[in-house]
Amino acid sequence: MMTFTHQDYQMMSRAIKLAQGGIYTTAPNPNVGCVITRDGQIVGEGFHYRAGEPHAEVHALRMAGELAEGATAYVTLEPCSHYGRTPPCAEGLIKAKVAKVICAMQDPNPQVSGRGIAMLRDAGIEVQVGLLEADAHALNPAFIKRMQTGMPFVQLKMAASLDGQTALANGQSQWITSLAARQDVQVLRAQAGAILSTSQTVIEDNASLNVRWNDLPSSVQSRYPANSVRQPIRVILDRQNQLSPDLKLFQTEGERLIVGLNGEVECRLDADHRIDLRTTLERLANQHNINHLWVEAGATLASSLFKHQLVDEIVLYLAPKLMGSDGRGLFGALGLHDMSKVIDLDITELKQVGRDIRILAKPIYKE
Amino acid sequence: MMTFTHQDYQMMSRAIKLAQGGIYTTAPNPNVGCVITRDGQIVGEGFHYRAGEPHAEVHALRMAGELAEGATAYVTLEPCSHYGRTPPCAEGLIKAKVAKVICAMQDPNPQVSGRGIAMLRDAGIEVQVGLLEADAHALNPAFIKRMQTGMPFVQLKMAASLDGQTALANGQSQWITSLAARQDVQVLRAQAGAILSTSQTVIEDNASLNVRWNDLPSSVQSRYPANSVRQPIRVILDRQNQLSPDLKLFQTEGERLIVGLNGEVECRLDADHRIDLRTTLERLANQHNINHLWVEAGATLASSLFKHQLVDEIVLYLAPKLMGSDGRGLFGALGLHDMSKVIDLDITELKQVGRDIRILAKPIYKE
Repeated sequence: MMTFTHQDYQMMSRAIKLAQGGIYTTAPNPNVGCVITRDGQIVGEGFHYRAGEPHAEVHALRMAGELAEGATAYVTLEPCSHYGRTPPCAEGLIKAKVAKVICAMQDPNPQVSGRGIAMLRDAGIEVQVGLLEADAHALNPAFIKRMQTGMPFVQLKMAASLDGQTALANGQSQWITSLAARQDVQVLRAQAGAILSTSQTVIEDNASLNVRWNDLPSSVQSRYPANSVRQPIRVILDRQNQLSPDLKLFQTEGERLIVGLNGEVECRLDADHRIDLRTTLERLANQHNINHLWVEAGATLASSLFKHQLVDEIVLYLAPKLMGSDGRGLFGALGLHDMSKVIDLDITELKQVGRDIRILAKPIYKE
Repeated sequence: MMTFTHQDYQMMSRAIKLAQGGIYTTAPNPNVGCVITRDGQIVGEGFHYRAGEPHAEVHALRMAGELAEGATAYVTLEPCSHYGRTPPCAEGLIKAKVAKVICAMQDPNPQVSGRGIAMLRDAGIEVQVGLLEADAHALNPAFIKRMQTGMPFVQLKMAASLDGQTALANGQSQWITSLAARQDVQVLRAQAGAILSTSQTVIEDNASLNVRWNDLPSSVQSRYPANSVRQPIRVILDRQNQLSPDLKLFQTEGERLIVGLNGEVECRLDADHRIDLRTTLERLANQHNINHLWVEAGATLASSLFKHQLVDEIVLYLAPKLMGSDGRGLFGALGLHDMSKVIDLDITELKQVGRDIRILAKPIYKE
């Protein structure tokens, strides 16, 4: 059994905290942090900030300079072993002559998992794996899911009144949730690799579906400057080519991918002549490297995603209002006729956001 | 300005904690606790357990005996000044020759408020009022409301899936919430003076609407023995005399009040030929001394209570399930056509009860 010292825990904790500095910018890369210590003192540290820029280990090694020789490196993820846009980090650690590397977890990509560790060990470096692994996992749930399954992590955002209504019977719905909840949505959007919606939502709301720096809470603005905002890719399901170029979607910053018969993402139709959602998501993962897909749309897409068991997590904002059940419900089209068929969820977080309630829940799919 | 010592705070805190020992049994009386100290030592304490039995001060004075002379009494509510089923507590304190009385709050009944304090002062006892007043208020929100307004405190219990459904379109609904939530309902029912429901709910569910000791959680059972269970009065709206004596309602322990044209509670009809709810509630408060009315019924009564602005607090259990909006919604009949007319709430508590969510919220009524 491996044993880690109190110092090991402290340093890996620090590396995990550092890694969080990249949550808005690293997509499609994972969040990674690194701390290098020698004789119990931190001599280098860093985190991966943006895809294409240096990895965490490179920052930490640069800072440590010659002090890296004989040092211990704490990395939240197994150092990479391949030449990408940057040289492999395992090689960098070997060249710097570190004595020991502690990784929180192995690389989740089954094709390369363990290779970085093997490279280090082959070079005579002592390697330990598994320190604060659950916390390291929580840094990159979406990246890990794509690596392991080839599918994106799908987070479905919904908002309703406390009695589950998204609009009155006549369609009135503006500002159901509060400013604090809308700011919170901006924070979560900003962490996604892509935002999925439908032409219906884009047209009805003339939604831009981008990250608006001015709408982020000041606590986020202070560590995420306006000039470094990364816009998630906006993926719009538009089977019938209904989108017109005068929509805000086309006049705001950020990449777009239209899914339709003539769209950038080739669209396969299912038996009901609707866009096949599973194939579409697979393509977003495999061809567009999308780890974390944030969904903002109406009841129809939400219901379809649940029916196809594609939702990983629901983010539900409930406003402290009663609207009456004669309005529009959260899920219009589940069409359930048997209580044994209802979708069960596990509540994973419950809190107030301003005057609203925010619920995070994971579906428990039956076979 | 009054000043209280650290010892004063400690003793009143203790009196408030003692008072909670009566939450299942004192109705229609308030929860009251009393601590008597002499030379910094507790010489007597007690709380009001059940209407008709001795008040908190009597228990504490009995325990203190001769040591009450020159002592300080901490009482969570102004001592009573009238002869009821027991002699006035102010008189008891005077006879025992206590030197000082500290009350958390005055009597909320405008007709007697301040009289007990005046009696004590007239007898030369030093009296201070207002120590931990908010906590003392929280012991008896319903009693205080009835005393101040002549109306009961109405707590509306509802349960739904996370998307606001109480049943599938075909009516299937059994066990939406978990055992833990149903136990929690028993705990809250047990604290109410009366339970309000409708003949429709009683007939559809063959509901007994009583407190079942076996269904209380063991933490409550251990301090509330089965043989001392007080059953809230079951008040059933039954305008059309639909209740039949073979229903569980009539075969289970606990008083019943039928509200209808031939019922125990005379029923006034409103313009829509429905039972006038405001008048009914006034009668429950004034003629039947009901402070705390716990409502368990369907969407129709819930909506009517909201429309007439009679709900003081909603207790909403949300089960972690999605049922689809083609089912039965929480509030069928609010009939709102304007977002400015939606009912705003203030969330006052948010927690998980087993796997379910429990939300306490107070309506903010507009004029």
